[in-house]
Amino acid sequence: MAQAIDFYFDFSSPYGYFASHRIDEIAARHGRSVAWRPFMIGAAFKSTGQVPLLNQPMRGTYALHDWNRLARRWKVPFKMAEPFPFIALAASRGFYWIASTDPDRAKAFAKRVYHAAFGEGRPMDKPEVVVPEAEALGIARDDFLAAVTAPVWKDRLKAETERALERGAYGSPFFFVDDEPFWGNDRLEEIERWLETGGW
Amino acid sequence: MAQAIDFYFDFSSPYGYFASHRIDEIAARHGRSVAWRPFMIGAAFKSTGQVPLLNQPMRGTYALHDWNRLARRWKVPFKMAEPFPFIALAASRGFYWIASTDPDRAKAFAKRVYHAAFGEGRPMDKPEVVVPEAEALGIARDDFLAAVTAPVWKDRLKAETERALERGAYGSPFFFVDDEPFWGNDRLEEIERWLETGGW
Repeated sequence: MAQAIDFYFDFSSPYGYFASHRIDEIAARHGRSVAWRPFMIGAAFKSTGQVPLLNQPMRGTYALHDWNRLARRWKVPFKMAEPFPFIALAASRGFYWIASTDPDRAKAFAKRVYHAAFGEGRPMDKPEVVVPEAEALGIARDDFLAAVTAPVWKDRLKAETERALERGAYGSPFFFVDDEPFWGNDRLEEIERWLETGGW
Repeated sequence: MAQAIDFYFDFSSPYGYFASHRIDEIAARHGRSVAWRPFMIGAAFKSTGQVPLLNQPMRGTYALHDWNRLARRWKVPFKMAEPFPFIALAASRGFYWIASTDPDRAKAFAKRVYHAAFGEGRPMDKPEVVVPEAEALGIARDDFLAAVTAPVWKDRLKAETERALERGAYGSPFFFVDDEPFWGNDRLEEIERWLETGGW
């Protein structure tokens, strides 16, 4: 069976949010699955010297316009998370904990967190605001809260982030199709073409 | 007649080079013309805090991979200009001078400069290396060399760059379709969709 497409994203990334609505369907059209891999984009920013988009003159203005335009084009609800950007440690650690026993439920959890943050504009920065998204999927509150502070899941997120950086993922979303890197929500069409043709 | 699409680019931008091969055809399919507008991206970098891509860890590595991949996909020759990046004052001023009497010849000149820089990897940073591209189009060497240091064309390039920044163009290529901004070579598909549908 063909290798899964790696989908690296930060929960605090609007472009990751938009990509999360399309990547599974694109992959499925070409017989591929997708491995969702939240990581901490801030670690990449330390290497690249980038700062969050909205803090950048001109680029921030365009990004906000672009996100609203993408929302209209793809009929995806959009409302900026507050606070934004946010450090998505709880959601990211919780994701890997859930994924360790049930990858599909982890993906459903990620979709709920993204929807809360950028579909409804709710804070998703702390364990207590993230935990209801786990509970809605039948996960026990105390188990989730314990997992997101447990060393094993802290370490797992660190390892995933380090691996992402080693592979060259410096932004969100960042995709690998058989080790071929693609950066950005606006490369989904190119990824689809790559899958159709086998690359060039 | 529908308004021309504004195509802002820096002659030192590989993504601008790739876009230059496709934007006219895309526009023409929808009954539009394209106004090519070289500008000095360095002025935008002062506002945004960006630095040239190849100087950025991770991002530079990806960009180089991406440019070679784009060249294969779109069957466009690609060889990095040396030096790179370069300050394209002569080519940009010369462009506006030529365009003032013959816009089509200015576009042909721009294509020659881009091809020299990124199709053949030749230096395009100084008047004496740019002037053969003008001569090849029947332009007198001395006229070109005089124009690229004349205050009127220095001022015109400054004004075009200031106007680009006022409109929010912080990267190359940057497009405006009826004042709707699109950043990046990877938005050409979205521009085409916008033209097809009238926007969203």
